[in-house]
Amino acid sequence: MKTIITVSRQFSSGGRQVGKRLADALQYAYYDKEIVGEIAKQTGFAQEYIEKYSEKSVTRVYPYTYGATFYGYKDSPVEEIQKAQFEIITKLAQKGECVIVGRCADYILREQNPLKVFIYASDMACKIERCKNKKDDDGLNEKEIVKQISRIDKERAKYYYFCTGQKWGELENYNLFIDTSAIDIKTAVEIITTAASD
Amino acid sequence: MKTIITVSRQFSSGGRQVGKRLADALQYAYYDKEIVGEIAKQTGFAQEYIEKYSEKSVTRVYPYTYGATFYGYKDSPVEEIQKAQFEIITKLAQKGECVIVGRCADYILREQNPLKVFIYASDMACKIERCKNKKDDDGLNEKEIVKQISRIDKERAKYYYFCTGQKWGELENYNLFIDTSAIDIKTAVEIITTAASD
Repeated sequence: MKTIITVSRQFSSGGRQVGKRLADALQYAYYDKEIVGEIAKQTGFAQEYIEKYSEKSVTRVYPYTYGATFYGYKDSPVEEIQKAQFEIITKLAQKGECVIVGRCADYILREQNPLKVFIYASDMACKIERCKNKKDDDGLNEKEIVKQISRIDKERAKYYYFCTGQKWGELENYNLFIDTSAIDIKTAVEIITTAASD
Repeated sequence: MKTIITVSRQFSSGGRQVGKRLADALQYAYYDKEIVGEIAKQTGFAQEYIEKYSEKSVTRVYPYTYGATFYGYKDSPVEEIQKAQFEIITKLAQKGECVIVGRCADYILREQNPLKVFIYASDMACKIERCKNKKDDDGLNEKEIVKQISRIDKERAKYYYFCTGQKWGELENYNLFIDTSAIDIKTAVEIITTAASD
């Protein structure tokens, strides 16, 4: 039985919901936004600031920190967040059985041999629908939603590459990909439970 | 319940075995090499010749047929095989519940809304091991096996692109990807059965 399951996900694919229900079904700990709270405690940064940077590409801030190395190197806030994230995820996984959503957990915990799941939706219409049904819907029209989906996934891919040197969503980096356009959330949870029992 | 399941697969990922066992478990018809026999009947070509060309890129033969259009167009043998393959797969799917392995069936049957599965192995060592254990092992060393795996998958990708205009193994073209390096064949069959019952 797999004791650590990482859930990577395209924006608006229902991945978070899959992760939450999976943790409930298996009675595993669930870590997602909880990680942000832990990073806040460790670094002293506001949760809002961490949320903004904990899954986004940090390449833009790099030139500033490079210059600083000549005068005494110090991590940029974004790098500090990234380091804290790595440490916290490692510690959380040591506590026992868990489902961790996003934040490069699949790579961070690679030595622990997790089941690495990637949730996506092959049909853009499904993603748009899911976006529209969100509680925190911010009144975007369809064209704007499509742009938002594309932008957020690009940021996740960049961030993942920056932290891991690997490509986000590439077959060789995960064990199971589920398309929530064709397979509903309940069935996705059953599928992952079966895979985890292998 | 999904009545048509298409199984695409990387070379030496165990995809054919998954397809066969899945068809047995669901009591669905299983079509794989049977398709070659049907193409042979329809076109009159030898099975060996069809096997050589029915999943390989046909771009190399194209220039010859292009020239011929000025003198009365006739399909090249490879195009004839391809057309027969499309017709036969469509007819087989009309007969009822089935599992079809490879041969662009996911694309050919897209209007019938099949469950589109892709079997892969993220770990090259697993593929090498599977190659070595094949009955028709042709005495290649590891380096040669890796070359063979890479070559065959490239050919499949080219052929798929030629027939469908889509990328082989890309997330948006399938519903479920299973890594047989991490998930055994028996569990893969259970997973697909669960997905098909959605």
